[in-house]
Amino acid sequence: MNTEHSLASSSPLDLRAVHIQDQYWSSFVNLIRDTVLPYQWEAMNDRIESAEPSHVIRNFRIAAGLEAGNFGGFVFQDTDIYKWLEAVGYSLAVTPDADLELIADEAIALIASAQQEDGYLNTYFAIAEPGNRWTNLMDCHEMYTAGHLIEAAVAYYQGTGKSALLSVAKRLADHIDGQFGDDPGQLRGYDGHQEIELALVKLYEVTGEENYLKLASFLIEERGQQPNYLVEEWEKRGRISHWSPGVVQNNHQDLRYLQAHKPVREQEAATGHAVRAVYMYAAMADLALHLGDESLLAACKRLWSNVVHKQMYITGSIGSTHHGEAFTFDYDLPNDTNYSETCASIGLIFFARRMLQLEPSGEYGDVMERALYNTVTAALAIDGKSFFYVNPLEVFPAAGRGNPGKHHIKSVRQKWFACACCPPNISRLLSSLGQYIFTSGPDVLYTHLYIGTDTTNLTLAGRNVSLRLESGLPWNGHVRLRVASAAGNGVFSIAMRIPSWSDQTAFTLNGSPVEPEIRQGYAYLTHDWQEGDVISLDLDMEPKRIYAHPNVRANAGRVALQRGPLVYCFEEMDNGSSLPNLILPADADIRLVHIGNSVALHAEGFRQEDSDPANASLYRTSSLKLEKQSIYAVPYTQWGNRKPGEMLVWIRE
Amino acid sequence: MNTEHSLASSSPLDLRAVHIQDQYWSSFVNLIRDTVLPYQWEAMNDRIESAEPSHVIRNFRIAAGLEAGNFGGFVFQDTDIYKWLEAVGYSLAVTPDADLELIADEAIALIASAQQEDGYLNTYFAIAEPGNRWTNLMDCHEMYTAGHLIEAAVAYYQGTGKSALLSVAKRLADHIDGQFGDDPGQLRGYDGHQEIELALVKLYEVTGEENYLKLASFLIEERGQQPNYLVEEWEKRGRISHWSPGVVQNNHQDLRYLQAHKPVREQEAATGHAVRAVYMYAAMADLALHLGDESLLAACKRLWSNVVHKQMYITGSIGSTHHGEAFTFDYDLPNDTNYSETCASIGLIFFARRMLQLEPSGEYGDVMERALYNTVTAALAIDGKSFFYVNPLEVFPAAGRGNPGKHHIKSVRQKWFACACCPPNISRLLSSLGQYIFTSGPDVLYTHLYIGTDTTNLTLAGRNVSLRLESGLPWNGHVRLRVASAAGNGVFSIAMRIPSWSDQTAFTLNGSPVEPEIRQGYAYLTHDWQEGDVISLDLDMEPKRIYAHPNVRANAGRVALQRGPLVYCFEEMDNGSSLPNLILPADADIRLVHIGNSVALHAEGFRQEDSDPANASLYRTSSLKLEKQSIYAVPYTQWGNRKPGEMLVWIRE
Repeated sequence: MNTEHSLASSSPLDLRAVHIQDQYWSSFVNLIRDTVLPYQWEAMNDRIESAEPSHVIRNFRIAAGLEAGNFGGFVFQDTDIYKWLEAVGYSLAVTPDADLELIADEAIALIASAQQEDGYLNTYFAIAEPGNRWTNLMDCHEMYTAGHLIEAAVAYYQGTGKSALLSVAKRLADHIDGQFGDDPGQLRGYDGHQEIELALVKLYEVTGEENYLKLASFLIEERGQQPNYLVEEWEKRGRISHWSPGVVQNNHQDLRYLQAHKPVREQEAATGHAVRAVYMYAAMADLALHLGDESLLAACKRLWSNVVHKQMYITGSIGSTHHGEAFTFDYDLPNDTNYSETCASIGLIFFARRMLQLEPSGEYGDVMERALYNTVTAALAIDGKSFFYVNPLEVFPAAGRGNPGKHHIKSVRQKWFACACCPPNISRLLSSLGQYIFTSGPDVLYTHLYIGTDTTNLTLAGRNVSLRLESGLPWNGHVRLRVASAAGNGVFSIAMRIPSWSDQTAFTLNGSPVEPEIRQGYAYLTHDWQEGDVISLDLDMEPKRIYAHPNVRANAGRVALQRGPLVYCFEEMDNGSSLPNLILPADADIRLVHIGNSVALHAEGFRQEDSDPANASLYRTSSLKLEKQSIYAVPYTQWGNRKPGEMLVWIRE
Repeated sequence: MNTEHSLASSSPLDLRAVHIQDQYWSSFVNLIRDTVLPYQWEAMNDRIESAEPSHVIRNFRIAAGLEAGNFGGFVFQDTDIYKWLEAVGYSLAVTPDADLELIADEAIALIASAQQEDGYLNTYFAIAEPGNRWTNLMDCHEMYTAGHLIEAAVAYYQGTGKSALLSVAKRLADHIDGQFGDDPGQLRGYDGHQEIELALVKLYEVTGEENYLKLASFLIEERGQQPNYLVEEWEKRGRISHWSPGVVQNNHQDLRYLQAHKPVREQEAATGHAVRAVYMYAAMADLALHLGDESLLAACKRLWSNVVHKQMYITGSIGSTHHGEAFTFDYDLPNDTNYSETCASIGLIFFARRMLQLEPSGEYGDVMERALYNTVTAALAIDGKSFFYVNPLEVFPAAGRGNPGKHHIKSVRQKWFACACCPPNISRLLSSLGQYIFTSGPDVLYTHLYIGTDTTNLTLAGRNVSLRLESGLPWNGHVRLRVASAAGNGVFSIAMRIPSWSDQTAFTLNGSPVEPEIRQGYAYLTHDWQEGDVISLDLDMEPKRIYAHPNVRANAGRVALQRGPLVYCFEEMDNGSSLPNLILPADADIRLVHIGNSVALHAEGFRQEDSDPANASLYRTSSLKLEKQSIYAVPYTQWGNRKPGEMLVWIRE
């Protein structure tokens, strides 16, 4: 292990240094702070009427001995509050809020009081299976849960300077470090659900203690080795799964589902549960970065390429099947049975940001933007109180009700979920969004996302620099980066991502056209920057027709519309029902119109209709007739916000 | 109960009177007799290498005390041999075979030796749960299994005149009749899987004993009444399902799955497990017929109409989802995730034939023909030794392997099945095919299917008549019905079905054009028929483009090809891979060509291809280019017989 040869070319900025002030994104950030976090607190206290109960606060009270009762919810229920605290930490970093901090401190005290003498902390095992710690890593999310605690602790420490939760997390991490490893008497195991690996890297980053990085590396490297630890563990406990108590299984869980079918460095394609996969890839990128591990980086690139070029939806979502919330196989991207879990897109963003730190290549930024502007925000209702867990690309409400293979497809956002991973995941991403806009190296600032910021302070080429970013995205393509102040002198670069959707991007520097050097999708402007300097970009906001690779069977003969970062969709309320009968002619003009506060798209197209409505035959020789129809598309991210109904991303051309 | 007011307008002929001799169908009938029945015997004796074991003979030996061991297979495993014996009975009716009869007699002796003192017979309960008879009708197929015994016994009796198995069946039926009914002390239950109802009607038909008809009627009428028997039974046994032993369930099986959600007369649409549904509808039609029950007939017509006009595939298959092998909802007909179980199409044929007996309307014959010529025969390999259980309309082998929602879609016929309902069901249908070609009333002969017969003997208008049917279907549309002999004089009608696909049908009588009276899809020729009279038909064999009702989302923008009774499909080996990228222009000429021994179809069409194969992007602004391609279609029923690969029924137009 060598932690001196970091591959990092840039790092995220301190969250406290980036204040988002953006005509589009501020409302999301504010929604998280003002509505979602308080709402989630209510949910965690089981006070949301007609929503699924969370049980989480109650579980901690029981584990702490403050209340009697049985454990409620899933084995990983503790993570509800951890993810909430993580988001609270980010939010407090940017916007102090004494009331919120008080509630959070009380929650942290409750968590601390449930920690056991030896540092172990998990309310499920404490309450329900005290004797069975670390006996079912395959199913029971014990380290996954610990990982979320660690991430919360780091965020809360960074946001508030308070170390109470960090101490709890370190004690638990130390406990795990003692249990797992290749020393005699230690377990050579790893969790069925990856998460702790990237969390331990964060703990290393904030504490500087290398044992956490070593433990993360151990967990990644052991995964998928032979003999398979998870299989041996399953044999040892009598071939029992947590999910089917009392049933002796003939076969264990498919190891591909857990990405434990082969060593991670040898994995060629994304398999299995999508969230586990991308959390693992993010940790692999972290380790490649901190350990200067080129071969691990090569594995990351290979897996990235498989996901992004063969298994990702146009909305930046992943997971083609609800069976195991999982990847399926290359180019298998059905639009009406996919899972596309919100958390998986968030994990993909985690992975992308880490790859950007390793290598400033536009594709990572493109995917981060695609997932963020389309899937992540789609999952959140405009009132911040209901959420999508699954993000389909074609919705027919009757099928969600009537076809069991589509029961997971909801046409209305849900108030809460028994397995409530997604809403707090949205909160933690959006409240830390400042860490995704920029990364910086010693003498270069990378701008990955065009999200407006008030002032952003950082050091570049040894100078204290303050910047301000303005962006019209997603509605217009005007972007300005202004140097608000820059002490002293010295050359540094400002690199601006050129989105892949912008075919023509015009740059000016202080009003004069410039042609910056373009490398891997970034435009580099190098200069002895001074106060008042302004870079401006005009991004290409022409609506684009997008086609899928011909191997994507589901999209044969179909086209999608995109403008800027936004993918569009067709909703029943604008276009009538039976959306598959609509045809968008290949030569139709696509024009901008306004629907509500959004830029919508309009084209003249056709609808195929019954030529003889009296003909009830299911099969007939008479073809359908074409009727002219105006077709409207709205941003996918806003679908289902007006009225439940059909929705379609890929329309017949 | 009034059994005197039969609604029958016609009845099937005695199977012994109909000898199939047909250039197309004889090979199927011979294949069943010469290959499938012996192969199934081997399978039932667990002697087929690398096929799933049947266990059935062994189970009977154990139940009879001839061997020690545990029960093997499913609760309904006994039906493997019952369905085989039924098929053997039909086969012996037409083609005596002393060797086969000897084997069958021995099997019957084995079955008889497993029957218990009180008439009860079921090897699962005898071996595995002797104390639990009739305690889990919801799951355990006890009467379903008895039903198949009864059907076998009737067929074997009719085919051979031997009554040993009939006695066994009667003793079991009498036992059930004692257990179930509305007398005090009797159970008011019915089976979770319908089958015994139509079997009891057959037992009534062959014995004339009304108690069997009454029991069938009781089982049909009790179904779905409140309080629900199956739910009460489930409560009584502690909310346990046979399929999840030891697990206390929160909810019972969805009653719609069992068609027990409401009384059968009130059911509006087909729901649940497709085989159960059509077996039940067939029994309802039987009861309507024998009891002169117009309101039950109305329910049959309503359910028929729902199935055929809203839930049936173009291949005459039903069951849109593999979840429960079930119907979903109106117009939900996905091509690549459907179940379309072979047995369900067979059950649909049972239902159709009974509706034809009630009312000679062409639609019943059309559906019978559609299911028979397309799905049933597709399920059987040309060598008679492998079978499809599921009959998809779109196959992409990689998806069957790689997407769990499509794991049920096989691209290669399977040797045998753990749940081996389909292969013996094909055998019993094809070996009794003579009962589906004609039905007759006192002075009318209906010809429903154009399947050639050697001589067919029957009585019409009091005259002994012998007929011979010749048919060129499915390859050409020439049909001739010749009166081989007709004793005495007297007027009777010969009614010939005009298939719905035949837009122009020319009739001649003894060579001269005639214009017969057409009623509900049948052409009636009424005459004092004499030896040598010949009716001939020329059916319209132009290839037809077929379109689906616009509510069928899966077929939007797509067309299927049909010629005569055969639906066509596109296979990878004729058209290359990526079949969804093929386009059949709306104005393309469709011409006949030969592929192997089949009439195939050819048209000049297009393939959408990558305009820049070097572009690995999943999403791009460049549209695909169109390349000319010859497109070939082969009969669906023959798909997968040459080489595994992609297959598609509905092609983009």
